[in-house]
Amino acid sequence: MEQRISLITLGVADLSRARTFYERLGWRGQEIEETVFFQAGGLALVLWGREKLAADSAIEDRDAGGIVLAHNVRSPAEVDALLADAASAGAQITQPARETFYGGYAGHFRDPDGHVWEIAWNPGFTLGPDGSLTLPDFGTPQAPQAP
Amino acid sequence: MEQRISLITLGVADLSRARTFYERLGWRGQEIEETVFFQAGGLALVLWGREKLAADSAIEDRDAGGIVLAHNVRSPAEVDALLADAASAGAQITQPARETFYGGYAGHFRDPDGHVWEIAWNPGFTLGPDGSLTLPDFGTPQAPQAP
Repeated sequence: MEQRISLITLGVADLSRARTFYERLGWRGQEIEETVFFQAGGLALVLWGREKLAADSAIEDRDAGGIVLAHNVRSPAEVDALLADAASAGAQITQPARETFYGGYAGHFRDPDGHVWEIAWNPGFTLGPDGSLTLPDFGTPQAPQAP
Repeated sequence: MEQRISLITLGVADLSRARTFYERLGWRGQEIEETVFFQAGGLALVLWGREKLAADSAIEDRDAGGIVLAHNVRSPAEVDALLADAASAGAQITQPARETFYGGYAGHFRDPDGHVWEIAWNPGFTLGPDGSLTLPDFGTPQAPQAP
């Protein structure tokens, strides 16, 4: 496992409210399929419905505070290998690797303290040579200026 | 607020167990004052006792899943300004800015969904021109190879 994080996803109860809050702090993102992505250095901060996030990770919504750290890799085979390594290291696999709704391949584990990680191959997200993630232009309208 | 994250701190019940887990996945970090820091791209992943993390953020340990996102800035005045912006945007200030045990200045807020952010000036951590954080060499022995 390379020593890096690709996405931090915050589960939110009201996507519009959450997006407005971060926009009022000066952040600018893109929304697609009821998900907001903010580029933040070499990773992305993501806002997504808490229930969807919990279901996707196969955890209870109230567990782990509704935050998932994702580590993206360059192939489906790497997803399998990394989840196997995590299980060997003592992780609990909450969601075995499977094809995802966005055409990728991903699985989830919890570390010994219950923190949730997704290991994902997402053909829509390019990783740089150093593993940094740069969001594509989703082609959606930019948010209007926050009030 | 610049669009970036400086540290992700995971609250852990047993620091040694948590460190061993990440080392078995191949991560290499530095430990100082019962805190483990892993460089991860332009930010740091940090392992710290759950109770200390909760006390530092002035939140209940079981709230927010024991994860705090930190945004480091370049001066104490920026900490004050950013916390004021966050409060104006609807954040709950859980810990007003104050001097920290490590010689810095920091405060905490929760976003509308309860996710916890620390806004910190830490004179020991250098920020690059792009805001990326590079850990210093703490001068502590490197961890032995994990089994």
